[in-house]
Amino acid sequence: MSQDQTTNQSWGGRFSEPVDAFVARFTASVDFDKRLYKHDIQGSIAHATMLAKVGVLSDSERDSIIDGLRAIQGEIEAGQFDWRVDLEDVHMNIEARLTERVGITGKKLHTGRSRNDQVATDIRLWLREEIDIIVAELERLQRGLLQQAEQHAEVIMPGFTHLQTAQPVTFGHHLLAWFEMLCRDRERLLDCRKRVNRMPLGSAALAGTTYPIDRQLTCELLGFDAVSGNSLDGVSDRDFAIEFCAAAALAMMHLSRFSEELVLWTSAQFNFIELPDRFCTGSSIMPQKKNPDVPELVRGKSGRVYGHLMGLLTLMKSQPLAYNKDNQEDKEPLFDAADTLRDSLRAFADMIPAIRPRVDVMREAARRGFSTATDLADYLVRKGLPFRDCHEIVGHAVKYGVDSGKDLAEMSLDELRRFSDQIGQDVFEVLTLEGSVNARDHIGGTAPAQVRAAVQRGRELLGDS
Amino acid sequence: MSQDQTTNQSWGGRFSEPVDAFVARFTASVDFDKRLYKHDIQGSIAHATMLAKVGVLSDSERDSIIDGLRAIQGEIEAGQFDWRVDLEDVHMNIEARLTERVGITGKKLHTGRSRNDQVATDIRLWLREEIDIIVAELERLQRGLLQQAEQHAEVIMPGFTHLQTAQPVTFGHHLLAWFEMLCRDRERLLDCRKRVNRMPLGSAALAGTTYPIDRQLTCELLGFDAVSGNSLDGVSDRDFAIEFCAAAALAMMHLSRFSEELVLWTSAQFNFIELPDRFCTGSSIMPQKKNPDVPELVRGKSGRVYGHLMGLLTLMKSQPLAYNKDNQEDKEPLFDAADTLRDSLRAFADMIPAIRPRVDVMREAARRGFSTATDLADYLVRKGLPFRDCHEIVGHAVKYGVDSGKDLAEMSLDELRRFSDQIGQDVFEVLTLEGSVNARDHIGGTAPAQVRAAVQRGRELLGDS
Amino acid sequence: MSQDQTTNQSWGGRFSEPVDAFVARFTASVDFDKRLYKHDIQGSIAHATMLAKVGVLSDSERDSIIDGLRAIQGEIEAGQFDWRVDLEDVHMNIEARLTERVGITGKKLHTGRSRNDQVATDIRLWLREEIDIIVAELERLQRGLLQQAEQHAEVIMPGFTHLQTAQPVTFGHHLLAWFEMLCRDRERLLDCRKRVNRMPLGSAALAGTTYPIDRQLTCELLGFDAVSGNSLDGVSDRDFAIEFCAAAALAMMHLSRFSEELVLWTSAQFNFIELPDRFCTGSSIMPQKKNPDVPELVRGKSGRVYGHLMGLLTLMKSQPLAYNKDNQEDKEPLFDAADTLRDSLRAFADMIPAIRPRVDVMREAARRGFSTATDLADYLVRKGLPFRDCHEIVGHAVKYGVDSGKDLAEMSLDELRRFSDQIGQDVFEVLTLEGSVNARDHIGGTAPAQVRAAVQRGRELLGDS
Amino acid sequence: MSQDQTTNQSWGGRFSEPVDAFVARFTASVDFDKRLYKHDIQGSIAHATMLAKVGVLSDSERDSIIDGLRAIQGEIEAGQFDWRVDLEDVHMNIEARLTERVGITGKKLHTGRSRNDQVATDIRLWLREEIDIIVAELERLQRGLLQQAEQHAEVIMPGFTHLQTAQPVTFGHHLLAWFEMLCRDRERLLDCRKRVNRMPLGSAALAGTTYPIDRQLTCELLGFDAVSGNSLDGVSDRDFAIEFCAAAALAMMHLSRFSEELVLWTSAQFNFIELPDRFCTGSSIMPQKKNPDVPELVRGKSGRVYGHLMGLLTLMKSQPLAYNKDNQEDKEPLFDAADTLRDSLRAFADMIPAIRPRVDVMREAARRGFSTATDLADYLVRKGLPFRDCHEIVGHAVKYGVDSGKDLAEMSLDELRRFSDQIGQDVFEVLTLEGSVNARDHIGGTAPAQVRAAVQRGRELLGDS
Repeated sequence: MSQDQTTNQSWGGRFSEPVDAFVARFTASVDFDKRLYKHDIQGSIAHATMLAKVGVLSDSERDSIIDGLRAIQGEIEAGQFDWRVDLEDVHMNIEARLTERVGITGKKLHTGRSRNDQVATDIRLWLREEIDIIVAELERLQRGLLQQAEQHAEVIMPGFTHLQTAQPVTFGHHLLAWFEMLCRDRERLLDCRKRVNRMPLGSAALAGTTYPIDRQLTCELLGFDAVSGNSLDGVSDRDFAIEFCAAAALAMMHLSRFSEELVLWTSAQFNFIELPDRFCTGSSIMPQKKNPDVPELVRGKSGRVYGHLMGLLTLMKSQPLAYNKDNQEDKEPLFDAADTLRDSLRAFADMIPAIRPRVDVMREAARRGFSTATDLADYLVRKGLPFRDCHEIVGHAVKYGVDSGKDLAEMSLDELRRFSDQIGQDVFEVLTLEGSVNARDHIGGTAPAQVRAAVQRGRELLGDS
Repeated sequence: MSQDQTTNQSWGGRFSEPVDAFVARFTASVDFDKRLYKHDIQGSIAHATMLAKVGVLSDSERDSIIDGLRAIQGEIEAGQFDWRVDLEDVHMNIEARLTERVGITGKKLHTGRSRNDQVATDIRLWLREEIDIIVAELERLQRGLLQQAEQHAEVIMPGFTHLQTAQPVTFGHHLLAWFEMLCRDRERLLDCRKRVNRMPLGSAALAGTTYPIDRQLTCELLGFDAVSGNSLDGVSDRDFAIEFCAAAALAMMHLSRFSEELVLWTSAQFNFIELPDRFCTGSSIMPQKKNPDVPELVRGKSGRVYGHLMGLLTLMKSQPLAYNKDNQEDKEPLFDAADTLRDSLRAFADMIPAIRPRVDVMREAARRGFSTATDLADYLVRKGLPFRDCHEIVGHAVKYGVDSGKDLAEMSLDELRRFSDQIGQDVFEVLTLEGSVNARDHIGGTAPAQVRAAVQRGRELLGDS
Repeated sequence: MSQDQTTNQSWGGRFSEPVDAFVARFTASVDFDKRLYKHDIQGSIAHATMLAKVGVLSDSERDSIIDGLRAIQGEIEAGQFDWRVDLEDVHMNIEARLTERVGITGKKLHTGRSRNDQVATDIRLWLREEIDIIVAELERLQRGLLQQAEQHAEVIMPGFTHLQTAQPVTFGHHLLAWFEMLCRDRERLLDCRKRVNRMPLGSAALAGTTYPIDRQLTCELLGFDAVSGNSLDGVSDRDFAIEFCAAAALAMMHLSRFSEELVLWTSAQFNFIELPDRFCTGSSIMPQKKNPDVPELVRGKSGRVYGHLMGLLTLMKSQPLAYNKDNQEDKEPLFDAADTLRDSLRAFADMIPAIRPRVDVMREAARRGFSTATDLADYLVRKGLPFRDCHEIVGHAVKYGVDSGKDLAEMSLDELRRFSDQIGQDVFEVLTLEGSVNARDHIGGTAPAQVRAAVQRGRELLGDS
Repeated sequence: MSQDQTTNQSWGGRFSEPVDAFVARFTASVDFDKRLYKHDIQGSIAHATMLAKVGVLSDSERDSIIDGLRAIQGEIEAGQFDWRVDLEDVHMNIEARLTERVGITGKKLHTGRSRNDQVATDIRLWLREEIDIIVAELERLQRGLLQQAEQHAEVIMPGFTHLQTAQPVTFGHHLLAWFEMLCRDRERLLDCRKRVNRMPLGSAALAGTTYPIDRQLTCELLGFDAVSGNSLDGVSDRDFAIEFCAAAALAMMHLSRFSEELVLWTSAQFNFIELPDRFCTGSSIMPQKKNPDVPELVRGKSGRVYGHLMGLLTLMKSQPLAYNKDNQEDKEPLFDAADTLRDSLRAFADMIPAIRPRVDVMREAARRGFSTATDLADYLVRKGLPFRDCHEIVGHAVKYGVDSGKDLAEMSLDELRRFSDQIGQDVFEVLTLEGSVNARDHIGGTAPAQVRAAVQRGRELLGDS
């Protein structure tokens, strides 16, 4: 984007030599900002409508401009538009073509605005639309998780801390942890959207304009929530892009965590889930390979979004007011962050409903690893021993189990009683996996009943019930 | 912080050798997490109150625990508490001291919770308080800006784009651009606070607890807005810390922009403002130096907050559920980000009301640099010429001005008419600075009337009128 | 890049359904890795040559393969190659086309290698070439600086600390500070090149190959310095890409500093240099504008390179051995970092020889701002006063100067003697700018003689004298 | 650090009010820069020695200063030094104390230098020492890896790509992949050290000094490789700190990768290695837990070093020459990055020699997962089939194995021949793990013989044989 400048020929007498050819290419933005064409035209139509309303354009001039812009949109979408680097950016390309089509009237469209406020408006319109698409994909993924969680509310797997077996949990409960993360991502995107959806148009180059513009009207025509309150800030504010990248970085971080678990779970060592072949690829060398490419790639893509966030923060550091050319660098990272998040969510929304837990493998893993050791300690507490003593008793039993290769539930009563004579036959109920998970029956707990209640809450949140 | 572990002696029989001395130091967190003592005690008092309500503790046990905790808080605040690295973290230090004071009852406090949910609760309580302090400093700075803007609503300075003189603006308008940035920072901090203010307590180690806890009660006692919905997520979620750092990074970015301008404006070349000596330092070598240390330092400090944001995002990348020891690394960056933002805002809130514009220097700078060239072009448009022609005419006049060292308003009518015979005596009104700024009289524009209206809106936003 | 996988049809019997269409697009890399075609072919030719030497290919097979590859390179460079996304990456596209051209022999090329080591080799060959191009541009910029420094060795400007006038320096000396930064960049790029220039080929998928390959021969054919020492590391090492991005980030940081100064110096307030029109752009609205777009844009571009560095560091964090699909994400940031650095250096190498100092403005600025205050203090030291007292005396004189609007050299002897009767007529020599700069006559000092000596050293370093 | 400023009392007459109390605290650096005391004194002794040599100090003044500085070092190390925040930084604290001890002579020490070049010298001396310590720890870790690799050169484990079983590798080979990464870290640290070890002293405030200093002499006394070539650059260059952080970030990235594997390998699902209890911690709640805290924490600590790198790059972005107060922010991230890397390496150097592979578990895992599928395909190639056909045949056999739960070596000859009648009794040799690893017998390959050769090369590199 090249905000308050234009092609050399339009700078008139102040310049005594043309722009260097390499500099012209180096500073042009049309290669990437042409992506904004639809929002540029949308903004221009609203601007023209407003200019007619306040009397700066006649109605026929307005109609001529709007018809011309719609025709240009048709040309672009039909692949018949000739983008020219010497016209620098999307705005000048469209304006030049408009003037070709409708004559001198086309030039009047630029009255009362500058490229500085125009581009800031375009990006906001674009990003608002992207956020809506992203939130829709995110909700699709959330629905997939709810469905899986409901279906597998009673499937037991080992819960881990430090990647060590900790306590049994339900697979549904685990999936709902992911659901919760996405809830926060959705909230953050919607909070960000509020600040995206403010209109800088009318800030003109930096100080506002002398024409009798009606910003409130344009604001309504474009569906913005409010107009920006200060023109110097309006042309230079890129907070919304950074805030979006921060929200996207958090969402990608969550997807990297889901991915890590999917990669672990599809390894031969865990073998907890089955991932359909259509989400995997093989190897041209090793005939046995079936690689979880999608989660690996999404995990890797977290890096690029983190990078874009850092890039944009760096971009804005220490910039004096108002618009500086540096700001042209805002678009590529923003575009790529949005694309990456949207595609990653889409891939997950397609994939998650298709994963299948290997119920037996999960259960067996939960049975091993002394996952009910805490339950045994709690059992002893109920027999009247202090918790610290119980902890030590169970610790000794675990050590014996590690040495002898037996889990707690595999020991005989005699073996268990070597560690405490308070242990009775009823201990074996405590050592069952179902007993363990069912006992954690409060909001947020892993009990199947809680999983089902959480699914219900999730559906209400999404407006599905 | 060392979430689901404890001192060696409490691990009982499972371990066959003590922790290596260097490892003990390397993994301990008490040196930095002791800062959470107040919130740890606050959380424990609420937890004990709830445990008594549901019958896990007797009323006298509860009272004994609460009295003990309050006494410990007193010891800490009196500097009489002996922090021990071998007790690893703030939680175990306080619990051990509690047991010293009230005996075995102290041990019962930990019923139905683990350090995993305890520390997550502590940090949230701490951060909620910090956000409130930070928002108060931010609003203090905003009030300083409103006052200065009102006072200097009519002071004219050059507005810059690309650091080149663009159009005249008012100093008040410029200051309100900063005000707008802070409005968004405030919104973001308050949006973040919603997600900080949720209670993980009750998640226990990872799966919830078998005790009949009443999470809603604890939630109310601690002033949280809601309980967290999933225990696996509850113990491992650090989104709130990252989101805070993102909001802080944006706010520091804004302060770096203000700083850059203050540094420029206090240079001999700009000389736009006077910064009182008490915000500056001198040089031990160069007797004439008076350096704007505060804005320079704040500008530099943006780096550390960006860094902490990056550090925390990296920390969480690809972590499988639930709690991992990695998470102990969440505190130092978060603490430092909050401290840095709070102190930087404080320094600015003190300093901004004390800056004084050099009205004459600003005005003279606006008079030069052809800042009313756009106004001259608009004048010619009103005479009936197409804007493109006007632009070129003014471009030639500017070129003449550059060569002859005269600004537009300094040329004689004859000189001006060399470029267009449409120019008449009335042009000199157009070329005045007041004419230029007053003409930009719409919401967001630079006209003094708009500045005063914006000050009024700002006061309403802050509840000051 | 999709390392150890291939198109669905080649995975044979292990898969029971085709890859999902969106997944195929999401995971394909040919859109960006086709850029490596030349180096892919270069590596394949060396590999085929080696395979023939060790007897795995016959000489006629080798010739057929090499002829085919050269023809394909011709097709690509003529724009006649049909890149297919369903063939995933540059490697499979070229191999498939080779088999079309030379039949089953084409398939034998892949003997003893996998895409894992192939792509790692390709990127290194590509980056080695880019580094050489970048270093050449960097040296071109250095030569421009040396020439300007020599020409302006005696031009005096104010030296700044804290952007406050500190002491007079020569413009040549200032430019040589930039030269020094670039020297370190050059060293770092050459140090990085050592680690780029090692050959992973022969690592095969991860463990090496059963074929009797001669890695040393391939290494020599491709001009690598050494073979990589471990196959697991060989296929997964991306240090070289990160190290390059770190060196590029430092170089861009330096260019952002030069840019900042150029933007300052072309402002109306500083007005220290003239930047030819061909490196600037104007405004479509404001006829007087001449914006320093090139330095602004380069300053902004530092952000994207910082971002890529962070992205790649994040990418590699916590990856277990050996190759993971995540690594496909290495290319786009690396490509963009190299492009950005190269183009930014090119723009500066073109621009720097064309800047012209406004000698009078610089001199006048140095005369003001009490830049010789330290010299006055030193003068008083020579008269026998303790430095602390001198500092205070000069401090008072400066305060008087601030209040009366006079610089030290503008005060009369009487005025000066108000602050110390040790001051005599000879003080005015001390207060000259020439006296000040000439006195700093040691290696690294600002004296014109030192500037010329430094230019000479710089030329020797670049092999130019 | 507060470079060219000093306490208010020494600024003399230029200032009309004292520094604000909060500002004084906000801008002081002594809390963290006192860590440089030893290097500050070391630099001052060399400076005094040089000043005496060139005649600025008398020999007795020099001796008095040096004796005073040595005594102060003693005081500091005995904990008897009173650090004062009102004296701002380490330099002024030591200088003030020196003057207390030796009188007015102490003030002469500052002749011909400023705090700007002094602090830049101190940090370099400090960092040079830290690098040497870090490299020593790194080499200790490397030796541990070589010893383990040699001992376990024949232990077979599954090699992974995409965390899927790929081909058998030797445990020694895997450990040597880590060794290779550390080799590059060592190279980078030593390359960085070259640029650390240059002396800015003599740059004075920014322009050099008028005193007849002998920089070469000071350079030799302090063991620097060279003097810096430009004073403006000398006082503002912080490249060395950034480059160190970049090298540290890469090294921490490597440690995060080792950590990830250690965490995986100690999980119940992998169970590949045993980590001694002294490197683990338990849980106060779950008696069975034994958590790999050290690798988890180190993995997490990668984030803080990435963050410091980002922070420093941001710090330096767009700073004009020469010294600005922003630079005071260089120390804390640098200190923490060095501490983190050193401690992490130390923890690993202690831990790695103590890990024990579970040879049987590793072997069993390699036997499963169809890790010799590539070897079977190669076998069929040797029987004369095209590789693509072989790949498909083996793919079908793997699919059969997945369905029937048998690995390739567990199928009967009859079963195998269902997929190709080219398979004979000799196939079972090919399917052995030893056959597979021994066949990859070239430099960089996984064969035990290659592992032993690589260990030998590693020892030579470290000067151990």
